[in-house]
Amino acid sequence: MRRDLFTEDHEAFRGLARTFVEKEVVPHYPEWEKGGRLPRDVFKQMGELGMLGMAIPEEYGGAGMPDYRYNVVLQEEAARALVTLSTVRTQLEVILPYFLHYANDEQRQRWFPGLAAGTLLTAVAMTEPGTGSDLAGMRTTAVRAGDHWIVNGAKTFITGGMQADLVVVVARTTTDPDNRRKGLTLFVVEDGMAGFTRGRELEKMGCKVQDTAELSFVDVRVPAANMLGEEGEAFGYLGHNLPQERLTVAVGSVAQARSAIGAAIDYTKDRTVFGSTVAAFQNTKFELAACSTEVEAAQAMLDRAVSLHVEGELSGADAARVKLFCTEMQARVIDRCLQLFGGYGYMTEYPIARLYTDARVARIYAGTSEVMKVIIAKSLGL
Amino acid sequence: MRRDLFTEDHEAFRGLARTFVEKEVVPHYPEWEKGGRLPRDVFKQMGELGMLGMAIPEEYGGAGMPDYRYNVVLQEEAARALVTLSTVRTQLEVILPYFLHYANDEQRQRWFPGLAAGTLLTAVAMTEPGTGSDLAGMRTTAVRAGDHWIVNGAKTFITGGMQADLVVVVARTTTDPDNRRKGLTLFVVEDGMAGFTRGRELEKMGCKVQDTAELSFVDVRVPAANMLGEEGEAFGYLGHNLPQERLTVAVGSVAQARSAIGAAIDYTKDRTVFGSTVAAFQNTKFELAACSTEVEAAQAMLDRAVSLHVEGELSGADAARVKLFCTEMQARVIDRCLQLFGGYGYMTEYPIARLYTDARVARIYAGTSEVMKVIIAKSLGL
Amino acid sequence: MRRDLFTEDHEAFRGLARTFVEKEVVPHYPEWEKGGRLPRDVFKQMGELGMLGMAIPEEYGGAGMPDYRYNVVLQEEAARALVTLSTVRTQLEVILPYFLHYANDEQRQRWFPGLAAGTLLTAVAMTEPGTGSDLAGMRTTAVRAGDHWIVNGAKTFITGGMQADLVVVVARTTTDPDNRRKGLTLFVVEDGMAGFTRGRELEKMGCKVQDTAELSFVDVRVPAANMLGEEGEAFGYLGHNLPQERLTVAVGSVAQARSAIGAAIDYTKDRTVFGSTVAAFQNTKFELAACSTEVEAAQAMLDRAVSLHVEGELSGADAARVKLFCTEMQARVIDRCLQLFGGYGYMTEYPIARLYTDARVARIYAGTSEVMKVIIAKSLGL
Amino acid sequence: MRRDLFTEDHEAFRGLARTFVEKEVVPHYPEWEKGGRLPRDVFKQMGELGMLGMAIPEEYGGAGMPDYRYNVVLQEEAARALVTLSTVRTQLEVILPYFLHYANDEQRQRWFPGLAAGTLLTAVAMTEPGTGSDLAGMRTTAVRAGDHWIVNGAKTFITGGMQADLVVVVARTTTDPDNRRKGLTLFVVEDGMAGFTRGRELEKMGCKVQDTAELSFVDVRVPAANMLGEEGEAFGYLGHNLPQERLTVAVGSVAQARSAIGAAIDYTKDRTVFGSTVAAFQNTKFELAACSTEVEAAQAMLDRAVSLHVEGELSGADAARVKLFCTEMQARVIDRCLQLFGGYGYMTEYPIARLYTDARVARIYAGTSEVMKVIIAKSLGL
Repeated sequence: MRRDLFTEDHEAFRGLARTFVEKEVVPHYPEWEKGGRLPRDVFKQMGELGMLGMAIPEEYGGAGMPDYRYNVVLQEEAARALVTLSTVRTQLEVILPYFLHYANDEQRQRWFPGLAAGTLLTAVAMTEPGTGSDLAGMRTTAVRAGDHWIVNGAKTFITGGMQADLVVVVARTTTDPDNRRKGLTLFVVEDGMAGFTRGRELEKMGCKVQDTAELSFVDVRVPAANMLGEEGEAFGYLGHNLPQERLTVAVGSVAQARSAIGAAIDYTKDRTVFGSTVAAFQNTKFELAACSTEVEAAQAMLDRAVSLHVEGELSGADAARVKLFCTEMQARVIDRCLQLFGGYGYMTEYPIARLYTDARVARIYAGTSEVMKVIIAKSLGL
Repeated sequence: MRRDLFTEDHEAFRGLARTFVEKEVVPHYPEWEKGGRLPRDVFKQMGELGMLGMAIPEEYGGAGMPDYRYNVVLQEEAARALVTLSTVRTQLEVILPYFLHYANDEQRQRWFPGLAAGTLLTAVAMTEPGTGSDLAGMRTTAVRAGDHWIVNGAKTFITGGMQADLVVVVARTTTDPDNRRKGLTLFVVEDGMAGFTRGRELEKMGCKVQDTAELSFVDVRVPAANMLGEEGEAFGYLGHNLPQERLTVAVGSVAQARSAIGAAIDYTKDRTVFGSTVAAFQNTKFELAACSTEVEAAQAMLDRAVSLHVEGELSGADAARVKLFCTEMQARVIDRCLQLFGGYGYMTEYPIARLYTDARVARIYAGTSEVMKVIIAKSLGL
Repeated sequence: MRRDLFTEDHEAFRGLARTFVEKEVVPHYPEWEKGGRLPRDVFKQMGELGMLGMAIPEEYGGAGMPDYRYNVVLQEEAARALVTLSTVRTQLEVILPYFLHYANDEQRQRWFPGLAAGTLLTAVAMTEPGTGSDLAGMRTTAVRAGDHWIVNGAKTFITGGMQADLVVVVARTTTDPDNRRKGLTLFVVEDGMAGFTRGRELEKMGCKVQDTAELSFVDVRVPAANMLGEEGEAFGYLGHNLPQERLTVAVGSVAQARSAIGAAIDYTKDRTVFGSTVAAFQNTKFELAACSTEVEAAQAMLDRAVSLHVEGELSGADAARVKLFCTEMQARVIDRCLQLFGGYGYMTEYPIARLYTDARVARIYAGTSEVMKVIIAKSLGL
Repeated sequence: MRRDLFTEDHEAFRGLARTFVEKEVVPHYPEWEKGGRLPRDVFKQMGELGMLGMAIPEEYGGAGMPDYRYNVVLQEEAARALVTLSTVRTQLEVILPYFLHYANDEQRQRWFPGLAAGTLLTAVAMTEPGTGSDLAGMRTTAVRAGDHWIVNGAKTFITGGMQADLVVVVARTTTDPDNRRKGLTLFVVEDGMAGFTRGRELEKMGCKVQDTAELSFVDVRVPAANMLGEEGEAFGYLGHNLPQERLTVAVGSVAQARSAIGAAIDYTKDRTVFGSTVAAFQNTKFELAACSTEVEAAQAMLDRAVSLHVEGELSGADAARVKLFCTEMQARVIDRCLQLFGGYGYMTEYPIARLYTDARVARIYAGTSEVMKVIIAKSLGL
C-alpha cells in the first residue's frame, strides 16, 4: 500500500543511503561476515557522509535533524540490498538517545563530534549473565570513591562490545530493598580504562557482521565526569528508551521480510523445475501473496507507530505490540520465502539463508515475545 | 494504537449510532435472530435518523456527505454492541454505490428518496448456482423486446433477497465469444414484477439476522427505464465496486474481532475456576495479548486502506490484501477468544458463539481468500 | 496408512453399523437436527441389533464383549456417513463404564437389561454452573436420611439430560476442608423422582442431534439402593474414567476430520470454477494433501492409544495428548476443507457446515485444551 | 506413549550406540563442527564395533541382520546426545541400499568388506545444478566405450562428496524423447579416477559436521564392472529407495524434536528470571506440553510407518506423509523450544541453536514439503 510516512527530505536521504549501501557495503559484505565485524572504517565513511549525525546538533558536527524516520530509511535501504548494518543501527537507535537526552554540556563537547564523525564507536552494557530482561535484578555495582566511581561486574550479549570506544554501563549505585528499580546509574566506560576487559566473543547462528561480547569490569575507576544523567535514575532512562529500541527491531523485521519476498520473486521467476518456472506454480503464487499481505499489514502498523513515535505519542504497550507482530511476521514470511528456494535456501551464499538466521534473534532481543505479551496484557487490564 | 481516521463529524455520527444500536437493536436482536430477518421497520427508523442517506444528495432526502468513514463508524458501533446490521451494511456499502454512480436523473428521483428513507430495501443478484466468483461465467440473460428487456435466469446466495423491493440483477445482454467480460448489464427488478419469484431461503450456520435467498427470473419483463448504467458495461461496474465491497468485509472483521476481545476480557475477569479468575492465568493473558496485537495490526492496515479509499486511491490488490488479512485475523482471534469461555462459548446465548459462526463466511464472501491471493499474486507480477 | 487395530470381529460389527447408519440414520438425520434429539426409538433399534450391549454381560442381555474397539467402529461408521450419534456415544463410552464398574448385583439386574435393550436412556451430571472442569469444587449435596439420601443442587451442560431415564449425579456427601477431593458420591436419580426437574435446554452452535440440559435437584429423595459404588469415592471414579472419556472425543475428531476430507475431495472434483474443477487447482491439492497428512498422524497416534487402552495401559497424560492433538487437528482440517466449498460450505444443508460447528466443542468438552496442557505439563515434571 | 517397535536385540544395540556416542562423539563434536567433517576415523571405529554392517551379509564382515530398526536406534541415540551422525546416516540409509540390492557378486566381494569396516566411504550423486527433485531431467551422460563408460557431467548438493571413496553416480546412458525416465544408469566412480574432481564445498546454515559438495566428471573412464544394477533402470532404483530415504529424514526429525524438548525442560527448570524458574511460568508449561503432544503424534505415525517398512508395506504416499508431518513438526517444535532459551538459544554453543539450523533443511532435502504434497495429492486421486 502507498505509504505516507516520508517527506522529500527523507527521500533525498534515501538516495544517499542507497548509493552508499550499494557501493560501500554490498561488495564487501561477504568478507565482513567472515570477519564477524562491521569495520571501523565504515563508521567513518558514514560519518563523513553525514549519516551518523542526523540527530546530533549542528554545533557538534551533526545535522540537527532529530527525526526517527531517517533511521527507518537507513534500515530499509540496507535491507533492500539484503544486508544489515546492525552495529550502526544499535549505535543510532539504541545508544545515541542516551547521549542525546542525558549528556551534559561538557560531555556533549567531548563525545558528540566523535559520534557524528563515526570515530567513536559505542555499546550499551545492560544484560548480565542470568538476568535477561529482568533489569531490576542487575548486580554490577558502582561505588563512589572521591571523584571516581569503582565499577565491578560482568555483562553479556553486548552488541558491538569488542569494538566499542565508549560503553554505557548500567550499574547499581544504591540498594533499596523495597524498590529494586531505584539506584541504577549510567556510566560511560572508555576503552583502555584499567580493569575493563572484553571477554569471549559469543558465536551466534546469524547476525554475523556484528560482534556480541562478554565484558568484564574489575575495580574500574570511572571518573565522575563520565556519569551519564542523574545518579540512581537509570531504570527510568532505560524504560524511556525501550519503545524506540523495540521499534527499531520492528523496522528491521519489516524491511527484511519485504526484501525476502523480493528475493523469492526474483528466484522463483528465474528457476525452472519440472518444465516450468517455480513462480508458475499456484502454491508459489499463494505463498508469496500471503507473505506480501502479512508484510503490508505489518508495514501499516509500523508506519502508524513511527508516526506516533515522531509525535512522542507511542505508548510502551503499542511499541510492544508492534515488535511482537512484526518480528513474528518476519519469522513466518522469511521461512516461507526460504522454502521456495529449495536446497539453495539452505546455502549461506544465498542471502535468504542469512535473512533466516538473522531473523531468529528478533523475537528474542530487546525483550522476548513473551515479555511483550506481559506488557500488552497489563495494558488490557489483565 | 491511537487512530487518526475520524473527524469530529464522524464522532458525532458515532454517538448517534451508538445510542441507536443500544436502544433499538440490542434489546430486539435475539428475537430477530429467531426470525432470520432485520425487520423493515429498522430500516425505516434508521432512515428517519438520517443513517441511510449520508451519501445521498440532499435534494433526495440525504445528507449529501458521501464519506466512506460513516459506514465504518456504523459497523464499528454495531460490532461494539456485539450485533451486526448486515443487510443495512450490504445496502449501504455494496448496493447503494451502484445507484449513486449509475442511476440517471429519472431513476434518482424515483429511488433515492426511498433509499434514504429506508422504505426501499435492496439486494444485488450476481452469483448464480455454479458460478461463484467467476462473474464472467454468468448465464442469466436479458433480451430486448421493445421498451422492455426479458430477463431469464437464477441467482443464489442473495443477501436480503427475501425482503428486497429493488433487486439489481446482472444479466447478459450480448455474447462475445472472444470476451466473456463484455455484454453484462445491470437491471433493477422490482418486487411484484411477473415472473420474479423468491425461492428457497438458505439456512446458514451463522449470520442469522439476514436472509440469504435464491431468486428466480422467468420471462420477467423489465422496463428499459430500469436499466442501470450503460448496456454491456456491468462487468466494469462490478469490478469498480469490488474494492469497497471487500473493504466493508474487512471493516466488520476488525470491529468484530476487537469486540470479541472485549467480551473475553470481561468474561475471564468475572469467571472463576480452580480458585482464581480465568484472567489470572498466564495463558489467558498471553492469548488476549496476542489477539490484541493482531487486531491492532489489522486496524492499522484497514485504517490506512480506508484513508486511501476515501482519496480514491485504494488499488484492487490492496483491497484484496486487506480483506485477506482482516478476515483471516478475525477467524484466528475469535476462535482464541471463544476458547477462553469454555463450554459457555459453545452456547448461542453467548454472543461469542454468534461472532464465531458469523465470522466463518468472511473468508468466503466478496471473494474467497483464494481469490484474494490470485489477485495479489498478479499484482506481484506472478 | 494401513491400520492394524481391528480383527475380523470388529469388521463384522462394522458391516452391521454401516448398514444401520445408512438405512436408519442418514435418511432421518435432517429431521432429527430440527428436533434437537436422537429419538428414543433409535436407541431401541440399536438395542435390538445388539449395538448397545457389546460390553454388557450376556446374562443381562448383552454380548459380553467389553472391547473398546467396538465403540471406535461405531463412531467411525457414523462419521463416515457424515452424521454423529452423540448421545449413544455418551451413553456407551462415558456413562456405561460407571454402571459396569460400580453397579452391585441388584443394580445390575435392575438396569443392565434396559441399558442393553436401549430402553433406559442415561445421562451423567457432573458439571455445575461455575465449576467447569474443577470437579473438586462441586456444591451439589446429598445428605443421608434413613434409607434415602436427600439431594440438592444444580447441574448444567448435561448431554442427554432432557431424555434420560437414569441420571448419574455426582454429589458431595461429606466435606473435608483439607481434601476437596474426598466426599463425592455417585447417585442414580431416576426420571419421575420428586424434586428432580429438567430446566432449560441450552442452545448450541452445533451438535444439534443432542440435547444439552440444565438439571435441578430440590430435596430429591434418592433411595440408598441407588448409590453407585462406594460412598465418598466418586472423585476417583471420575478420574479413572477420564482417559476413556477423552479418547472417545479423539475417536470422533479423527473420524470426522477424515470424513470431511472425503467430502471435500468429492465436492472439489465435481465443482467447476473458472473453467476447471476446484480439485484441479494446486492449492486444492496441497490443502487436501496437508489435511490428509494430519489425519494420518492423528490416526496413528489414536490407534496406538486405543491399543494401549484395550490393554489397560493408557496413561492420563497420554489420553490428554491424544485428545489435545486430535481435536486441534480436527479444527484445522475441517476449517480447511470447508473453505474449499466456498459459499456452500456456510450452508447447513452441506454436511461440512455441520462438521464445522460440531467440531468447535471438541476442544472444550471432556476437558479443554488448556486443561489437557496442564495434565501433560505435569507429566513432564513441569 | 509407550512404544512397541523394538525387541531386546534393538535395545542391546541401543546400549552399544549410546555408549559409543557418549564416549566417542560428544566430546569431539564441537571440534568436528569447526572442521566441517565427520572424521574418517569415526567410520572406522563404528565399523569395528559392527555398527556399519548390521545389514551386510556375514560373509562380507557384516552382521547379516537387515532390519531398518537398527538405523532408527542409531539416529535416536545420536539425537538423544544432541548430535547428528549425518554422513553415517546417509551411508547406511540412503546409499548402502543401492549396494545391497544391486551389487553383483564380484562387486559385493570388492566393496562390502570395506563398507562394513568403515574404510570405504560413500556418496550418491543425483542432484544436478538446476534439476532439484526433477530426476528425469538429469543431464550427466555415460557413453559406452569398449569395457568402459565415459562419464561427463556435474553434480551438486552431494552429502559426503568431499570424503567419498565411492560415489554412486546417476548418469543418462540413452535418451528416449518419449520417456524421460528411461535410460538412467548407476555407476560407481572411485576416488582417484582421472577426470573426477571435487569442486567447491558448499557453506550451509547448519549441518556442520557434514560436507556438501559439488562434483565434476570430465571424461571419466569408469570400468563397466562398476555399473551398479541393470543398464537404464536407475530411475526405478531411485524411486524404490525413496520411501526409506524419506523415512530416515523423519526418524531424525522426531528424535531431534524430542531431544529439543528434553533440553528445554532442563534449561527452563534451571534458569531463573523475575524471581522464579522459567519452567514455572504457565506459558512455558503450555508450550512444552504442546511440543510434547506433537512429538508423540509424530512418533506414533513414524513407528507405524517403520513397522510397515520393515514388512515391506510402506507406500510412497505414506512415506511422503510421514516425512511431511515429521519435518514440519520438527520445525515448529524446535522453534518453540529455542524461544524458551531466550538469548542463549541464539548462541551456537547451546545445542538448541544447532538443532534449529540443522532442522531447516529437513523440509527441503529428500524432496521438499511441496513435492511431498504432490505425491500425497496423487494418492488421493487429485
